Amino acid sequence: MKVNTWFGVLELDSNGKTLSSEVFPKDIRELALRSLSLRESRQNLPPEGFDLKTAALECGFTESLSEYYSLLHKVTLETVKLQVSQALTPDQRIIQAVEALDDINETTNSLSERLFEWYGGYFPESGLSGEELAVFISRYGSRENLPPEDPHYLKAKNSMGAKLEAADEVLLKGLAESVCSLYERRKQIEAYIESSMEILAPNLALLAGPMLGARLISIAGSLEKLAAFPSSTIQVIGASKALFKHLRSRAPSPKHGIIYSHPLINTSPWWVRGKVARALAAKLSLAARIDFYSAKRNPSLENELEEKIRKIRAENPRPPQKRQEIRAKPKKKRRK
Amino acid sequence: MKVNTWFGVLELDSNGKTLSSEVFPKDIRELALRSLSLRESRQNLPPEGFDLKTAALECGFTESLSEYYSLLHKVTLETVKLQVSQALTPDQRIIQAVEALDDINETTNSLSERLFEWYGGYFPESGLSGEELAVFISRYGSRENLPPEDPHYLKAKNSMGAKLEAADEVLLKGLAESVCSLYERRKQIEAYIESSMEILAPNLALLAGPMLGARLISIAGSLEKLAAFPSSTIQVIGASKALFKHLRSRAPSPKHGIIYSHPLINTSPWWVRGKVARALAAKLSLAARIDFYSAKRNPSLENELEEKIRKIRAENPRPPQKRQEIRAKPKKKRRK
Repeated sequence: MKVNTWFGVLELDSNGKTLSSEVFPKDIRELALRSLSLRESRQNLPPEGFDLKTAALECGFTESLSEYYSLLHKVTLETVKLQVSQALTPDQRIIQAVEALDDINETTNSLSERLFEWYGGYFPESGLSGEELAVFISRYGSRENLPPEDPHYLKAKNSMGAKLEAADEVLLKGLAESVCSLYERRKQIEAYIESSMEILAPNLALLAGPMLGARLISIAGSLEKLAAFPSSTIQVIGASKALFKHLRSRAPSPKHGIIYSHPLINTSPWWVRGKVARALAAKLSLAARIDFYSAKRNPSLENELEEKIRKIRAENPRPPQKRQEIRAKPKKKRRK
Repeated sequence: MKVNTWFGVLELDSNGKTLSSEVFPKDIRELALRSLSLRESRQNLPPEGFDLKTAALECGFTESLSEYYSLLHKVTLETVKLQVSQALTPDQRIIQAVEALDDINETTNSLSERLFEWYGGYFPESGLSGEELAVFISRYGSRENLPPEDPHYLKAKNSMGAKLEAADEVLLKGLAESVCSLYERRKQIEAYIESSMEILAPNLALLAGPMLGARLISIAGSLEKLAAFPSSTIQVIGASKALFKHLRSRAPSPKHGIIYSHPLINTSPWWVRGKVARALAAKLSLAARIDFYSAKRNPSLENELEEKIRKIRAENPRPPQKRQEIRAKPKKKRRK
């Protein structure tokens, strides 16, 4: 019987005696890599109760028990290090990017608002906000520096805003530059997520769009977990508050979670949104599974989804009767 | 009797008849400036019930009532514009800066944390955080780019972090640069507040420190309002939650609001903090008033405050007996 151990391959007889052995060299990194692959393959593991340390001494891998233990300690440590460094799989990197993007969005919005309010005292008529305003301020500073060909020149000339002092102009320009740099970061990270999703999960990226797909992976925790979710879970990911309210009390079940941002749902009339969400979630779940197990593009998914949605819309051209209307008659009877 | 109006200076007899008049030129900006200064000085205003429009026609300022009204409309509009542009007084500018600083602090912290978590997967042993980490990442990117003379070189070489891919390195470096730029902004705005406070409120800046002084002005709304506050209000500014809890129920009154960050208070033993806070608030209130009405430095305030604090500390060398200890005896009696 052949047995794989962390220090070598042993040939055992039926009583567990070592017949012959092939011992690995005592290179800690090599041993750690072997032990890691052994952990994954789980092939020919020693039988239960097998005494590894005696076997190691017998086949001459180490000369003493203390040497065996010290080597084992070093190899285990190296194995853990290898595991940690392999923990950053592509989907984990996408999740980090999605989370960073959320943080950047939030901070950029709050700083943009601050910039808007601050600069509003000096040029309230500009009509600019967000990135446009940040670019405007970082380029010109005070409204007095506007060249006559700028479309805002006339507004700036007749502005009722206060005069911008040099010291304040430096601050505002600096803040505007920081905000611009954050907007740049946002675009950069979005582009990164899009291209990474194309490689990691092409089907999910195709069906859900790269950003929504990345968000689904981020909330699920990994592509593997997302692939393991039933489609009904994918349908309500991001609507956990409404879902638990539904489970706890008589509140209606949520029709959709973050997949609401998908154009197929938010452009549908309200009375088919639940059906469309269910169909979409079913296909997204399939897409996640195909991506996790093969990562090959499957164009038939998209066609099937479109066909399904077309059918749903065709079958439900009109809003359903409301419950109140259906119940209206019995109520009247009771009154008689 | 001499009467100032928005269109000119009139000389009236005792019956209100115009004897002579000096009419201003019909320049709208000029008229607006004059009317603004008239509003402030309030000298020689026309008597109640005096008919301004007839007087304007009589002295030949306008030829028709409609011309009078249209001019009045334009001048009033211009006056309002002037008022708005003068609304950004130095203390309002400091308040804007304080609020921007708070926003920047918050966003910088949240982005710094994100950077720490993200980079932690690639170089968990760095032991850096905040601005140091941002500078480190924006300079080197991957830990493999560290030069051998860097103090982190050995740690980086033996790090168990994952390999940083080029695409992720670009993102991380970009984010780190944005964070660095926000840290720069923070220093810039702090320097601005310090120098502005030296000019606007030298006594408050001396006694409270420029940042705390600016925060007090910011919460009060303006230096004028802060100067009008009683010292007991200044003492609990920023502790409104605790104050209203105290007023509503039997909760103890707050001893200090944001002035707690003043070194005189937070280095005092707990049993004199209330007294020190009261003494400090009294002097801060005086300082705000001196700053608002004269803006001249008054060095005696600081000495008085120090003298007072020394006295409080000398009179209370020991913590007072706790209430439980005082009440301990009557309770025992009841049990008998």
